[in-house]
Amino acid sequence: MQKIAIVGAGRVGEAAAQFIAQNDMAREIAMLDVREGAAEGCALDIQETAPLFKFDTRLSGSTDPAILRDAGIIVVTAGIPRKPGMSRSDVLDTNVRIIDEIVDNIMRYAPDAILLFVSNPVDVLTWRAWKRSGLPRERVIGQAGVLDSSRMAAFVALETGLCSCDINAMVLGGHGDSMVPMLRYTTINGIPVDKFLDAQALERIVTRTRGGGAEVLALRKNSSAYDAPGAAVAQMVEAIVTDRKRVLPSVAILQGEYSYPDGAMGVPCVLGKNGLERIVELDLNASETAMFKHSMESVLADIARLH
Amino acid sequence: MQKIAIVGAGRVGEAAAQFIAQNDMAREIAMLDVREGAAEGCALDIQETAPLFKFDTRLSGSTDPAILRDAGIIVVTAGIPRKPGMSRSDVLDTNVRIIDEIVDNIMRYAPDAILLFVSNPVDVLTWRAWKRSGLPRERVIGQAGVLDSSRMAAFVALETGLCSCDINAMVLGGHGDSMVPMLRYTTINGIPVDKFLDAQALERIVTRTRGGGAEVLALRKNSSAYDAPGAAVAQMVEAIVTDRKRVLPSVAILQGEYSYPDGAMGVPCVLGKNGLERIVELDLNASETAMFKHSMESVLADIARLH
Amino acid sequence: MQKIAIVGAGRVGEAAAQFIAQNDMAREIAMLDVREGAAEGCALDIQETAPLFKFDTRLSGSTDPAILRDAGIIVVTAGIPRKPGMSRSDVLDTNVRIIDEIVDNIMRYAPDAILLFVSNPVDVLTWRAWKRSGLPRERVIGQAGVLDSSRMAAFVALETGLCSCDINAMVLGGHGDSMVPMLRYTTINGIPVDKFLDAQALERIVTRTRGGGAEVLALRKNSSAYDAPGAAVAQMVEAIVTDRKRVLPSVAILQGEYSYPDGAMGVPCVLGKNGLERIVELDLNASETAMFKHSMESVLADIARLH
Amino acid sequence: MQKIAIVGAGRVGEAAAQFIAQNDMAREIAMLDVREGAAEGCALDIQETAPLFKFDTRLSGSTDPAILRDAGIIVVTAGIPRKPGMSRSDVLDTNVRIIDEIVDNIMRYAPDAILLFVSNPVDVLTWRAWKRSGLPRERVIGQAGVLDSSRMAAFVALETGLCSCDINAMVLGGHGDSMVPMLRYTTINGIPVDKFLDAQALERIVTRTRGGGAEVLALRKNSSAYDAPGAAVAQMVEAIVTDRKRVLPSVAILQGEYSYPDGAMGVPCVLGKNGLERIVELDLNASETAMFKHSMESVLADIARLH
Repeated sequence: MQKIAIVGAGRVGEAAAQFIAQNDMAREIAMLDVREGAAEGCALDIQETAPLFKFDTRLSGSTDPAILRDAGIIVVTAGIPRKPGMSRSDVLDTNVRIIDEIVDNIMRYAPDAILLFVSNPVDVLTWRAWKRSGLPRERVIGQAGVLDSSRMAAFVALETGLCSCDINAMVLGGHGDSMVPMLRYTTINGIPVDKFLDAQALERIVTRTRGGGAEVLALRKNSSAYDAPGAAVAQMVEAIVTDRKRVLPSVAILQGEYSYPDGAMGVPCVLGKNGLERIVELDLNASETAMFKHSMESVLADIARLH
Repeated sequence: MQKIAIVGAGRVGEAAAQFIAQNDMAREIAMLDVREGAAEGCALDIQETAPLFKFDTRLSGSTDPAILRDAGIIVVTAGIPRKPGMSRSDVLDTNVRIIDEIVDNIMRYAPDAILLFVSNPVDVLTWRAWKRSGLPRERVIGQAGVLDSSRMAAFVALETGLCSCDINAMVLGGHGDSMVPMLRYTTINGIPVDKFLDAQALERIVTRTRGGGAEVLALRKNSSAYDAPGAAVAQMVEAIVTDRKRVLPSVAILQGEYSYPDGAMGVPCVLGKNGLERIVELDLNASETAMFKHSMESVLADIARLH
Repeated sequence: MQKIAIVGAGRVGEAAAQFIAQNDMAREIAMLDVREGAAEGCALDIQETAPLFKFDTRLSGSTDPAILRDAGIIVVTAGIPRKPGMSRSDVLDTNVRIIDEIVDNIMRYAPDAILLFVSNPVDVLTWRAWKRSGLPRERVIGQAGVLDSSRMAAFVALETGLCSCDINAMVLGGHGDSMVPMLRYTTINGIPVDKFLDAQALERIVTRTRGGGAEVLALRKNSSAYDAPGAAVAQMVEAIVTDRKRVLPSVAILQGEYSYPDGAMGVPCVLGKNGLERIVELDLNASETAMFKHSMESVLADIARLH
Repeated sequence: MQKIAIVGAGRVGEAAAQFIAQNDMAREIAMLDVREGAAEGCALDIQETAPLFKFDTRLSGSTDPAILRDAGIIVVTAGIPRKPGMSRSDVLDTNVRIIDEIVDNIMRYAPDAILLFVSNPVDVLTWRAWKRSGLPRERVIGQAGVLDSSRMAAFVALETGLCSCDINAMVLGGHGDSMVPMLRYTTINGIPVDKFLDAQALERIVTRTRGGGAEVLALRKNSSAYDAPGAAVAQMVEAIVTDRKRVLPSVAILQGEYSYPDGAMGVPCVLGKNGLERIVELDLNASETAMFKHSMESVLADIARLH
C-alpha cells in the first residue's frame, strides 16, 4: 500500500496514525486537518519515533485537501463530539455537513480509495458517505465493532485472568447503547466463555462494554477515548493493506443481508485489499434479533431524517 | 526466565531452539545431545542469527548433562523415531530407557525445572517422567495438541482462504490416529467453522489433521516433521516464560479430570509460570467421549506395560 | 519486571504507558496523577487496546501515591512546561518542588525502584532527585539523548532516503540548545554519515535537531511533543526490563567521568537490570569538548541555584 | 510482493523459507527441488507453522521448474558443497552446470524476477548468472556479507556482553578466507568498537569470523551452517520486498566501482524494490585495499576459467 490518508488530526486520528506508522504498513501517511499546524505537528512528532520503532513510513500533514491525492485508504475521523445540551440530531446535522465536504474532496483527489469512517454516529455517516460518493459498498465501511469487541475482550481478560491473545469477542450492531454483544461467539481459544465465567460475570462484562465509551469519558472528562479507537482503526487498515482476509465486525451497507434491503450496520465482514470482500451472515437467536432490529431501526430513523 | 534447556539437538530440538531464541525468551539456552559436536554446532549456528533477529539469548551446547544445571524449563526431544519393522513396544521400550536417564539427570542438575516432553509416544513418556521424577504434575507436561491444532488451523485457513490469525482449532486426546479434533471449538474470530465450511470440507480437514505427521514424513522420506513441532514447543515455552495464562491443549497427568483417576492425556490447560496451572474440563458429547476413551485406553495400556 | 509506575498521566506519560504496554514489558503499569480521573482514564483506554495489540499488562491509575508501591521502575513525567513570560528559574523552582514531593513518595513506597526522569530541565532535576533520595547513581537517570538522537536519525533518514533501521545517531549533552550532536558517531550500517550527505545537509540536520522540540511546539501550538518523548522513554524502560545491556545516551550523574567530579549530563550509558551499569567515556574533539562544557556549565549553574 | 521462489529445498533454502514465511513477507512461496517430495515436504511443514506464527503466506513445492512462474524474487541455494578430495574447480564446474540450468528456467518462467544467489562460490556464480541471463546487474545479486557481518556482530556481542541490536559490523569482499572485515565500520550504537575491545579481542573476532563457516561445519560434521545463512537470505529478501532502502553488504557486479571494470564482489549496496539500487563506494585504506584486491583476483581468476 503506497499511501494512507487520515482526515482529522484529533486524538483518534493521531493514535491511528501512530499505530499504522509503527507497523510500517504504508510508504506514506498523509494527515489532513482544518486547524493550522495540527496535522503537520502530529505528523512530525510521529515521524520522529521512526528510528525508535524502526519504521520507514513518511508522514506529512496539511490543511489542504490536495494532500489526499491518490491515497489508497482514507480514514475519516473528523466531526464534532456530542456535548452536554446538544441533541442527537444537532450532532448529526453538523457532522453530515463536515462529512459531505470531506467526501467531495475524496472524490476529487482520491476517487479510487477505500473509505473507513470513524466519525459518529458512524453507521449513519458511513451510509451517507456511501450514498453521496456513489462508490460501491465494498469501498465504504465504518469502524465500530472492532473497538467494542476489543473492550469486551479486555473485560473478559480482566475477569478470567487469562491471556488476551486467546480471547475472541464479537460485538455487532450499532455503537453505544444499541450494540449487540454476541456472547455465544465470545471464546477463549475456541472454548465458549461461559465455561470460564458465570452468568453474573458475563452480565457485568456486557454492561461494561455497552458503557465503554462513557466510562472513559467520565474519567478523562475533557476527552473521549482515543487509544482503543485508534488501535481499532489501525487493525482494520492493516487487514486491508495486508489483504489477509480477516473476519472483523465492521459497519457495512446492507443490501439484503440480515433481511435488510438497505441501511448500515455492524456485521462480521471479511476485509481484504478490495475493502469489504464479504458479509458473514450469522444466525441470530430471538434476543439477538431483537437487539439487532432495535439497532437498525435507530439507524434507519436517522437515515430518514437525512433526506 | 534465566535459562531454558533442550535435550536432543535433532531437528525438532533445533527448530525449537531457533524459535525460542528468535523471540528472546531466555537469557540462556543450553542444548544437550549425546552426539559429539551436535549440540554445540546447533547452538553456534543459531547464535550467529542473533544480530539478524535482534536477540540476546546466549546459546551453548554440550554432551555433558551438567549443562542442564539450574534450567527453569527443560524441553525433552530425545528418543528414537519409529522405523519400518519396529513394533510400537520396541520404540516405547527404547525411549523409556532414554527418558529415564534424562529424568535422572534433570533431578540431579535442575530439580526445580518445569519439564516439557516432546519425545514419542508423548503421553506415555510424560506419565513415566512424572512418575519417575516424583515431581508435582504441574511441572511435567507434554506437547501434542498445540501441533495438531496448528495443523488443523492451517488446513482451515487453506480451505477458507481466511486469515490464520483469526482461526482457533482445538485438538485433544492422543497424538496421531487417536487424536480428538474438537470441531465444535474450532472457530474463526469466534464464529463456528461450520458457518464457513460444509461437512465434506470439515471431514477432509479432520482426516488430514489425523494424518498430519504421516503426510510430512511421506514427503520428506528421511525425516519426520520438525518445523511445526518446533514452533509448537516454542509456543508452550513462551506461555510459561511470559506467565500469560494461555489456554493451550497440553498433555497433562489426569487426577480425576475427565473421569480418569490416573493417566496422561491431551486436554486444554492454562499454562503459566508454574507450568500447568489449571486443567479445563470441557463437556464432551457422545462421539467426543468415545474418541477420548479410545485415546486414553491406548495410553493406559502402554502405561500398564511399563511396570 | 513485575511493575512499572508512571508519574504524570499527561501526554508524555500516556504515550510512554501505551508503548510500554504494547510491548508487554511489565505485568503491571501503575499511573499516578494529581488530577482526579486522569490516570484512571488513561489506564483504562490503554487497557482496552490489549486484545488488539495482544498484551497482558494490567494498567491502573490513581491520585494516591500508594499506587507506586513496589514498582521496579518509576518514570517521572510530572512538572509544568515553560510558558511565555516565565523565566527559566520560575520553571525550575516550581518543578523542583513537584519533584521533591514525588521523590519523597517514591522513597516511601518503592525505595528499591530505578528512577527515570523526563520532567524538564531534566539534567538538573535528575541531579536533584539523586541528591534528595540518597540513592546510588545507578538508579537515578534521565531521558534526553534518546529523544534527540531519534530526531537526528529521523532527519538523516529523510535526507538520505535510507532505512531508519540502519541509522545510528548519537546526541550527548543537555536537552535543547546545549545539546552536543556527535556527527562522528552518526552512521548508516556502520558507515559514517558524511559518506552519504554533504556538509550543508549535515548542518541542516544538526540545526533541525537542536530545534526539534520547538519545531513541534510551534506546529502543535497548545502542546509540546509527546509521541517521540514517549517512545524514547519506552526504549529506555525496555533496555532496563530486558537487561539487554543497550548503549543509550542517558542523563547520568557524573563522578569524575568526562573530567567532572559532580553534575548531571547526557552521556552514552550501558543500561541493564541495575539501571545505569556503565558510563562510556568518548574521546571528544575540541569542538565537542567546548559544547559539552557549555552544556555542563549551564547545568552546574542551575544546580548551584538549588541550594 | 506476490511471490518468492526458492530453488533448492536443502537446509539453507528451508531455513530461508521458514524465516521469510514467519514475517509474512509474501503471499506465496514456491520451492523447487529435484528430489521428489523434498520441496513439498518442506513447504507443508512450514505451512503448518502459520497459525502459530500468525502468517498467511501460502507455500508450495515441486520438482517442476514451472513452479517459478511469475516469481518476483528467486533465491538460488542449489549446488553441491565442497567435499574432502574435491578441488575448488571441481565444485565450480559442477555448480556452474547446475546454475546455468536454473538460470535458463528462470528466464523462461520468471524473466522479470530479481535473482539472489547463495550457492558457492557465490561471487563467481552470481557473475555467471548475470552473464548468462543477460539481466541488468540491478537484478542479479548474491548473499555473502550479510552472513559474515552477522557472525562478526555476534562475536562482538559475545565479547562485549552488549546488546546485539546496537552492534553494526561490516564485512566486504569474498566469502571465506578472502573476506574483508571492516573493523573501522564496526560500531556499537555508532561508537567505534575499539572503544569497547582491545586489539587482541578484535583480532580474535576477525579470525573467528573468517573461519565462521568452517567452525560450524567442524561441529555439525555432516552439514554446513544453515540457520545463519537462511536468516541472512531472509534479511536481503525483506529489504527488497519492503523497499526500505537498506544498506547491506551484497555480492554485486562491479562496473567501475572500487576501480574494477568487471567482476563480482561483496560491497555495501542499497537494496530496494528494484534490487540493487546503488553501490556505496567506501574509501579503503591500504590494508583494506590489499585484502579487497586479493579477494577480487581470486574471483577474476575463477571467472577467467569459466570461458
